[in-house]
Amino acid sequence: MNEKKSRSAAAAIPFRVALAQVDPTVGDLAGNRELMCKYIEMAKALGADLVAFPEMCLTGYPPEDLLLRPHFVADSKAALRRLASCADGITVVAGCVYNRGGQVHNAAAVLHRKRIVGVYCKQLLPNYGVFDEKRYFAPGEENIVWHLGEAGIGVSICEDIWLNDGPHLAQVGAGAGVIVNISSSPYHAGKHPGRQKMLRARARATGAYVCYANLVGGQDELIFDGGSMIISPTGKMIAMGTQFEEDLVVADLDLSAVRGPRKSAPPGGGPVAARKLQPYKRQNDRPQVACRVAPGLARWEEVYCALVLGLRDYVVKNRFEKVTIGLSGGIDSALTAAVAVDALGSENVIGVTMPSRYTSNATLSDSGRTARNFGIRLITLPIENAFRAYLDDLADVFDGLAPDTTEENIQARIRGNLLMALSNKFGWLVITTGNKSETSTGYCTLYGDMAGGFSILKDVPKTWVYKLAEHRNRQAGADYIPQSIIDRAPSAELRPDQKDEDSLPPYDVLDQILDAYIEKDKSRAQIEKMGFDPGLVARVAGLVDRNEYKRRQAPPGLKITPKAFGRDRRMPIVNRYT
Amino acid sequence: MNEKKSRSAAAAIPFRVALAQVDPTVGDLAGNRELMCKYIEMAKALGADLVAFPEMCLTGYPPEDLLLRPHFVADSKAALRRLASCADGITVVAGCVYNRGGQVHNAAAVLHRKRIVGVYCKQLLPNYGVFDEKRYFAPGEENIVWHLGEAGIGVSICEDIWLNDGPHLAQVGAGAGVIVNISSSPYHAGKHPGRQKMLRARARATGAYVCYANLVGGQDELIFDGGSMIISPTGKMIAMGTQFEEDLVVADLDLSAVRGPRKSAPPGGGPVAARKLQPYKRQNDRPQVACRVAPGLARWEEVYCALVLGLRDYVVKNRFEKVTIGLSGGIDSALTAAVAVDALGSENVIGVTMPSRYTSNATLSDSGRTARNFGIRLITLPIENAFRAYLDDLADVFDGLAPDTTEENIQARIRGNLLMALSNKFGWLVITTGNKSETSTGYCTLYGDMAGGFSILKDVPKTWVYKLAEHRNRQAGADYIPQSIIDRAPSAELRPDQKDEDSLPPYDVLDQILDAYIEKDKSRAQIEKMGFDPGLVARVAGLVDRNEYKRRQAPPGLKITPKAFGRDRRMPIVNRYT
Repeated sequence: MNEKKSRSAAAAIPFRVALAQVDPTVGDLAGNRELMCKYIEMAKALGADLVAFPEMCLTGYPPEDLLLRPHFVADSKAALRRLASCADGITVVAGCVYNRGGQVHNAAAVLHRKRIVGVYCKQLLPNYGVFDEKRYFAPGEENIVWHLGEAGIGVSICEDIWLNDGPHLAQVGAGAGVIVNISSSPYHAGKHPGRQKMLRARARATGAYVCYANLVGGQDELIFDGGSMIISPTGKMIAMGTQFEEDLVVADLDLSAVRGPRKSAPPGGGPVAARKLQPYKRQNDRPQVACRVAPGLARWEEVYCALVLGLRDYVVKNRFEKVTIGLSGGIDSALTAAVAVDALGSENVIGVTMPSRYTSNATLSDSGRTARNFGIRLITLPIENAFRAYLDDLADVFDGLAPDTTEENIQARIRGNLLMALSNKFGWLVITTGNKSETSTGYCTLYGDMAGGFSILKDVPKTWVYKLAEHRNRQAGADYIPQSIIDRAPSAELRPDQKDEDSLPPYDVLDQILDAYIEKDKSRAQIEKMGFDPGLVARVAGLVDRNEYKRRQAPPGLKITPKAFGRDRRMPIVNRYT
Repeated sequence: MNEKKSRSAAAAIPFRVALAQVDPTVGDLAGNRELMCKYIEMAKALGADLVAFPEMCLTGYPPEDLLLRPHFVADSKAALRRLASCADGITVVAGCVYNRGGQVHNAAAVLHRKRIVGVYCKQLLPNYGVFDEKRYFAPGEENIVWHLGEAGIGVSICEDIWLNDGPHLAQVGAGAGVIVNISSSPYHAGKHPGRQKMLRARARATGAYVCYANLVGGQDELIFDGGSMIISPTGKMIAMGTQFEEDLVVADLDLSAVRGPRKSAPPGGGPVAARKLQPYKRQNDRPQVACRVAPGLARWEEVYCALVLGLRDYVVKNRFEKVTIGLSGGIDSALTAAVAVDALGSENVIGVTMPSRYTSNATLSDSGRTARNFGIRLITLPIENAFRAYLDDLADVFDGLAPDTTEENIQARIRGNLLMALSNKFGWLVITTGNKSETSTGYCTLYGDMAGGFSILKDVPKTWVYKLAEHRNRQAGADYIPQSIIDRAPSAELRPDQKDEDSLPPYDVLDQILDAYIEKDKSRAQIEKMGFDPGLVARVAGLVDRNEYKRRQAPPGLKITPKAFGRDRRMPIVNRYT
């Protein structure tokens, strides 16, 4: 009787969960461990019973071929053991790499009373899109429920929960009332609402709490947007972390609300091991926590925030301080400068304007205005001298031949060379300004405007560039990006009176064809059926196909759409399929 | 009695197998089908009972993300049906992609009497190194033996046979005396002998004939070296195709020599379907064929031939005719020119010498001598004017700062710009000349000497460059690559009296450390234990790590070692692991 009573009294104290939405750095085992210890202390200070960290938080995600180095896996395990010593007074779920029996796993280690008390290994390994997990990991087989006082806790990792009959089902069948899913789910525009919908459906189907700890931060081309969530057994959003920022998401779970799986839910097969953990003595005086559901971001705000975080992390994690941007007076470079200023501060952004004989006064003054509006230093380096030197030096070998794109590319490459000279001399990272519409069609110069260390807009279609520029101005309440830039017809200004639309269809048409051909993998015939001119479709698809070689040498850039160039889309260069 | 007699009489006529070692082009479904029909006719003319084509021959290999386009898979299936109409009077094993029940397979279709009479789907899908097959394919489950008169034929695909208990074991257990394995096995230096050893072991263990049809040709960074083989049940090499060339490998198999599996061999599990094919009427007058075992190539001959084939196919399959190479007067560019001349003919190679204020007379005259020796056109474009223009234009912003690598890189990038101008104006493909030692350590200029469409020596360590140059001269019986180039200490000549060894350790030391760190994935501590100075190991490993961003923008180049940069080695740029 007494024992029963004390149990129900314990159950009356809610189970406090914390999700540590942190931004680790790939390969920085010591730094990531310290970051995790810091968040463990924060969670303890809030009286949390359990704190969960994102998938592979300890190594950073994705560590790619570092995972093929046995000493990296061994060092990671040593770091995990050291991390365990921080896990006292709180139970920790830590994303890590873990090797066992000669196999390497994407794992969630449970740390309790300074020990590793169990390791769950990811069962469903994504090997599509940007993911290569079958290259690195063996799938886990053991399913576990940890019993911590009244709480039954099932742990799964990212992809595991995207299938409605994933390992969480068996865990719930074996008594888990709290499903902890740790993820490093890469961002693309509009993905966050889809995740919410999926996770709410899992909560409702299982009648359990779903606690979803997602990574935040940039890693090379990927952005992780956070937005960690705690969802009630009825599918109600209890708490949600801010997107694109580190956050500690805390909520009290009323375990009496756990309903168990609905009758309509599949039974959930497979054996599940039960591990009983000795609960810590509960703090009676723990602080109240108010659950906070971060407000959702509107479309362009979300994309803009993603670009800012992705750039900042690439710059900072690579230990750069300042960046330089060629300011042409066009909208791409103006938006790029805006993102850079918001990511790094105006004192760390240097604009360079490099006028040629074809640069109009309007664009020249607009590049100056952009720099002034954003408070950034502007260097002016005219390219006429160098251009003349090239033309003179090539005069003999080009004798009798008409000017063509060759001369246009020479100018773009002089600009690339000047920006790289500044980069080499001052240690500034060159940020390129090309957008996805250009990158797709090859409307850009290799080693020219494509020269640089990182590309912010690589996966942003031109039509989105306008939306983002307008968003940025709207948010500032002023035309930081001059309206004249937004209004002017786009031009590369590499020959007299050049306009983008001399070479490309209007961007609203182009972007629709590109979306169908690249992101949706539609055939030319299917795109024609959408109502586009067959000749135009063939021309655009041909441009995309023929420019694979250029994209292969493009700088890395941020993934923003469901299918970016890079790991997402692996096309051969030698390719005669049309 | 009569029937038995005629059967044994039929068995007395050997089973004639042909392996069509062909060089298809990725995505060229119609062209590849025509190529295969041509070889089917050649094999028929030789009276072959069966002809086998390499893995995914009909699509080219690897088609990468083309496989994610449903219309590509559908078009491939249509091409297979058309190919079947060529399969009359002979049985054909054709590598192809095949979709069935919503799943896409890496398949071997058996074509007979103008019909697709069965499809074997690859069971073991490699997903390591350069391979991503689990991204594209579902593993096959059905195992089949085709019975064609007296011959029991088991078909498997590449990786399937690398495991000694692969599907061939069950096939032999179910009566196969002829194992046909179709492969697209990428080349690396020294791989061919390993394949022979493995295949002979399979033949001995199963007591069956092993017929191994391997792809030949270049596809982007990969080279397929052919060397198709027919091996007797006792492990004797009966026939072998020439490496690096198309070939039709033919042999008569005495089916009475089939022994069945040795007792020590594992039994080979799983059900095997039997498919009986109606034999064609045997030709009584078929020509005699003499089995030919192509002689093995010596080490440097093999690597050299690989480079020639890889370059030729990249150029031709991308529909270029001519290439241009910056001839510095150093050994890398001289060897690159030699390979290009051997691949494309001297009339299709244009050398460009671009002397600067730091170019010595010796190197200048050596670049001229190299061009004369190989009979190629040489264009001279001094870079002094352009260099001076840059220095003048940057004088204000660089005021008071000492010259450093910035000024070196400006020169290299002027050369890149000039080569690209020739490329743009005349349609020549720029071939870069950097070797693996430079690429590894970043001893090269992004957009400078790294500018170009294709890199021949990207995966060739500097110490190998010398071996290959000496091989080329030895084979020619004359110093086509001037001895003075081989003897001179390597220098970038970008500042006065510069030598590579000012910045890098001697190449014989460097290449050993690079091999350990990159190819063998050893830790710094392990490399120190090999006897290298800890400071040096840290410096070299640090250079490799820090220059990942440069390699990400390098042109594609030929894979020559077991681990090349590219698909083989996927390292993050943001990476703090040391």
